[in-house]
Order: sequence, then structure tokens, then C-alpha cells
Amino acid sequence: MSKPKPVIGITMGDPASIGPEIAVKALSEKSVYDSCNPVIIGDAGFVELIVKQLNLNLRVNAVSNVNDSMFKHGIADVYDLANLEINSLRIGEVSKLAGDASFKYVKKVIELALESRLDATVTGPINKESINLAGHKFSGHTEIYAHFTNTKKYAMLLVEGNFRVIHVSTHVSLRRACELVKKERIVEVTELISDACKNFGIENPRIAVAGLNPHSGDGGLFGNEEEFEIIPAIKEARSRGVVAEGPIPADTMFTKVSSGFYDGCVAMYHDQGHIPFKLKGFQWDSEKQQMKSVSGVNITLGLPIIRTSVDHGTALEIAGKGVASHQAMLLAIEYAVKMSKNINIKISGIQ
Amino acid sequence: MSKPKPVIGITMGDPASIGPEIAVKALSEKSVYDSCNPVIIGDAGFVELIVKQLNLNLRVNAVSNVNDSMFKHGIADVYDLANLEINSLRIGEVSKLAGDASFKYVKKVIELALESRLDATVTGPINKESINLAGHKFSGHTEIYAHFTNTKKYAMLLVEGNFRVIHVSTHVSLRRACELVKKERIVEVTELISDACKNFGIENPRIAVAGLNPHSGDGGLFGNEEEFEIIPAIKEARSRGVVAEGPIPADTMFTKVSSGFYDGCVAMYHDQGHIPFKLKGFQWDSEKQQMKSVSGVNITLGLPIIRTSVDHGTALEIAGKGVASHQAMLLAIEYAVKMSKNINIKISGIQ
Repeated sequence: MSKPKPVIGITMGDPASIGPEIAVKALSEKSVYDSCNPVIIGDAGFVELIVKQLNLNLRVNAVSNVNDSMFKHGIADVYDLANLEINSLRIGEVSKLAGDASFKYVKKVIELALESRLDATVTGPINKESINLAGHKFSGHTEIYAHFTNTKKYAMLLVEGNFRVIHVSTHVSLRRACELVKKERIVEVTELISDACKNFGIENPRIAVAGLNPHSGDGGLFGNEEEFEIIPAIKEARSRGVVAEGPIPADTMFTKVSSGFYDGCVAMYHDQGHIPFKLKGFQWDSEKQQMKSVSGVNITLGLPIIRTSVDHGTALEIAGKGVASHQAMLLAIEYAVKMSKNINIKISGIQ
Repeated sequence: MSKPKPVIGITMGDPASIGPEIAVKALSEKSVYDSCNPVIIGDAGFVELIVKQLNLNLRVNAVSNVNDSMFKHGIADVYDLANLEINSLRIGEVSKLAGDASFKYVKKVIELALESRLDATVTGPINKESINLAGHKFSGHTEIYAHFTNTKKYAMLLVEGNFRVIHVSTHVSLRRACELVKKERIVEVTELISDACKNFGIENPRIAVAGLNPHSGDGGLFGNEEEFEIIPAIKEARSRGVVAEGPIPADTMFTKVSSGFYDGCVAMYHDQGHIPFKLKGFQWDSEKQQMKSVSGVNITLGLPIIRTSVDHGTALEIAGKGVASHQAMLLAIEYAVKMSKNINIKISGIQ
């Protein structure tokens, strides 16, 4: 008998954003139901409205228990928090109302996953400003997940095609990021990405580790974090069985990673990983002045539950127009499925 | 009567490297002679040897005065320094001999340009270690040019297709680079790239200016260089007539620049500009473990003379094998021609 399909909870995201649109567009795809049992965490009445606006051939099934879902293509199961005053909502705008509702979907999906009612969670985009207006002081999903799962050590992994990059630090100033380049943390994320690659089905993942300074400091001429932190970290990771190489000057490393020469790589700070990632995955439409393609999955590693996400934002400027691409959402679901099929992920995280 | 073709001096680069090979391969192209009058600055005997090894249909014409050049396709004019003990040279290796010879080609090309015997200079790759072994304490071409032209304010511009990026700083540690993000310097490079774009024939260039911190600091949450240095610099540049926009978070800026939405952009540090540049212009061959394509031109702005260069290194591992691509050299020559046709460049630099 084949393994049952994993149950994937997908948050609706910010209701004023493209979040609900990309969630229902994804659920309108038969391929999604071939690989998993998806359920939206959101407001069923609002999902129904969006389905109608988009003219999708979907029937909404509101549930208050994951087990009541039908998991059948053509039916969008919605775990209904019924928490949205639809008439007061202003599409495309930052608001306390949208922020509060979207925060609650995230909180609920974490709760359901911790109770093992879901095998994995996928998040739609939320707006930091709206969340904070509603009094929830978090800088993003990652921090909300860390808080409610009581996780101290976690890291952001970005995936697009064979391009996989994990970050030593993310939302801190560049000056602070330089200070956070420490041996222990580098070993931690190098092991995390190596384990994640194994969970994606790569047998002996090769991990590239970037330098912090230009030309990896050119033998100490400009900067010595390579000598004092990064090289010792790579040695330590190797002694723990990780096939890690580096430090590799960041400006050529991503060319090598992009060719498939490495299975994953370690970026020393947010932009070092995000610049090449978005250059590869995103496409800008100069005429319409908006991103026309936003590919890429954002995965939080180190959590006791699985969390993948689209890597793009709320795109408020195109919300409600029906033009949003659900490409990244499909990828995020695909990765959630991959990870939930491999139980290792549950023990690979460090807490 | 049409303007005479510009005379372009091309240094042979490090003799132990792919430098001589890409120089003669470029000169074997008829198209080069259609647009300019090129002359190699190097060792004529050695150039002759390389031409034979590559089986190129070129006759070498050694000159000791630029005016004696024939400037005719099929003949490689070489301004002959006759400074190479060919029998002692070890191809593919770092050495004092190669370093000293290559340094002298650079020094000479600068001298000839300052004397107006050349309209522009193009440099082949040199090896920093070899140069330094020979007692010439410079970290690269840019510093040699600055020294011998007595230039204090200059900047590195990288060009590939419609992707043009200038750097606030280059060969310093990332910590130091954060300290160098200063209003005055940002205004300087923003004006330099705007002027350069005009010299490339772009009428009203739009310049994107990157933030330093992730998300451009997210309103001061992580880092305040945007508020205190970058935003005031953009205002100042605009007041001077530059169409500058920003600060734009670096991880989406390059996607926008890459689409052609901006004509040029300002990177706050070396890797911020080099990572996207090399990801676009370079291609890695995983099997051979070498770069299979290295496109991109490196231009020093702010000098009293024109200098363009290939942006790749000496590639010692493939020197003497006849497999080096001269694609970047052709581009470097093309840009030298473009810039020398426009006299503005000579006054656009700030000294």
C-alpha cells in the first residue's frame, strides 16, 4: 500500500493582497491533488468571493476540523476562522484589519501542525506593516514560527531549481551581519542545508560556503573573518561529515552554484544570498513596473514543523486584479510535499 | 570626411597567462579593424610565438613608435618592449619574471595615452601575486592607473549588455565598505556613471542607487546609512541634474536593472555589484571545472585617459592551451572605441 498523501495547510495570507488569489489558483490545479491533500487556513466566505471573481470551477467547503476536509480536486477545503469583515476590507491597502486576520491564519496553521493535524505548512504572503498595525510585533513569518514553536536556532533557505542558499543572518544591518559571521553559526547552517538537501533526495550534497569579504579577503588583505571564523567552521562541518567547500569568493560562487556544481550554498548575509536568488528567479516588467515572474521558495529550517512559503511579497499593487502568478505557490507546495514525505526533516532541525 | 579611427593600445597582459592569446585572437578579427586602429603593447617575439602556436593568419610588425604601426587586418602591430626572456618563462605559473614584464606593459600604455599617442587603452589580465613578487606593490590595474595618472577619485564600472554597475568601494573589507558609504562619495560615483552612460550614447540615463542594508534598512529598523548618507546623496545628485532613484533594496534592484528599466546602477560595495554581474556574464563548466564564458568589461572612470579591460583574471590553469575565449577582450575594445569617439569622456572624469 502506498503512503497516504501528506496533508498540507496553506495560509490564505493577507486578505488585501494577492495571497488568497494564488492560494485558490494553486488549488484549481489537478496536479496539486495528485501529490497532496491541501487545506486553506483562512476565511471561507472570502475565499468563496475570490473563487467567484476569478471564475474558477471550485466549490468551497468550510470546515472547522481538518478531518472534515474532502481533499478532492474541484473542492477547496477551507479551515474557516471566519474572522474577516469583508465589507470593511480595502483590497490593496495596508490595514490593521488585514494584518490581524492574516496573523491569525499563521498562528492557527502552526497550532494545527504542532498538533500533527497537518504534515506540513505553506504560507501565503503577509504584510509586515499591517501585522504590526494590528499589534503583532513580528518582522515576518520566520519570527512568528520561531516564537510559537519556541525555536531558537533556525535559518532561512531559499530554493529555486537547483539553486539552494541558506543564510547565516537575515534581517539585521550589514554592519551587524559582519559581527554575526561566527564559526558556531556557520557550522549550524552548513549542517542544516546539507540535511535539507538530503531530505530533498540528494544523496551526497556538496555545499559551497561563501567568503564574507571581496575575493574572500584576498589572504587577509581585506578582512579576516575567513581566516578566523569561516575556514575553522568549514573544517568543523567536514569533521561532522558535511561535504563543505570554501570559502569561495561570493562573486564567482553563485555562478558555480547556478551551474549545478554545488547542491547548496551558505551565504554570509541576507543580500549575499538574495541578490543572486532574485536575479535568477524574478523578472521585472519595465512597462507595467511590476514583477512579472516571481519564482522561488522560502523554507524555514530548524523548526519542529515543516514550513515553506512563496518568496515574494504581498504585491498590493496588483491585488484584486486577477493577474497574480501562482507559480511560486505551486513550488512552495511541491517542496512541502517533498519534505513531509521524508520523516528525517523532523529530526534534522536543531532546536 | 569621417573621423579617423581611434588608436587603441592593448596590453599583452601577463605572458604566462591567457592574456597574449586573447589579444592576438581579438586582432585576428576583421571587425576590430573596421572600428579602430589597434596596437599591442608587449613583447613582439613572444606575440609571434603565440600567433604560431595558435596557427593564426597574422604577421607581427614590431614597432618602437606607435606611428610606425600599419593598422591593417592581417598584421598585428606590437609596440615592442622586448623585455621577456622567453626561455625562462613558465606558462601557467606565477613568477617575478611574468609580473615584471606585465607591469611594464601597463606602465607604458599609460605613458603613451598621457602623451596622446593613443586614444584609449585596453588591458589584458595581470596577476597580482606576480606583480608583487616583482616588487610592484599594487593590488591591480586600477591602482596602477590611478598612481601613474595621479588620480585620487576614480571608480570601477562593470558593463555587460545593458547591465552597468559602478562601485562606491571595491577592494576593502566588508566592515570597511560599510564605513565608506558616505554622501560625498555616492554623489561622485552617481555622477560618474551618469556621465559614462551619456558617453555610451544614452541620452537621459536613469540611475538606480542601491541601499546598503537588507530591504534598504526597512525604514531604519536595520541600519541607517540609507537615511543619513544614501538618501541625501540621491537628493544632491538629482539637484545636479542626474536622474537618480533609490535607495532600492539591492535584492530586487538588479532584477530591475537587468530588465533595462535603468541604464546604470550604483552598488554600495564590491560584491553587491560583482555578484549579479558575474552571475549574468560568467558561465561555469562543472565538468572541466573552469569558467566557460566570461563576458563583461571593467572600466575605470575618473581617469584623464580611457581605460577598459576584460573583467576576468589570468586563468593560469588554461594558459597555453589555446582554449581561452576572447569574447570579453572584443567587448573591452568595443567600449574603448565607443568612449574614445566621445570627447566628453575626457572631461567627465573628476580628479
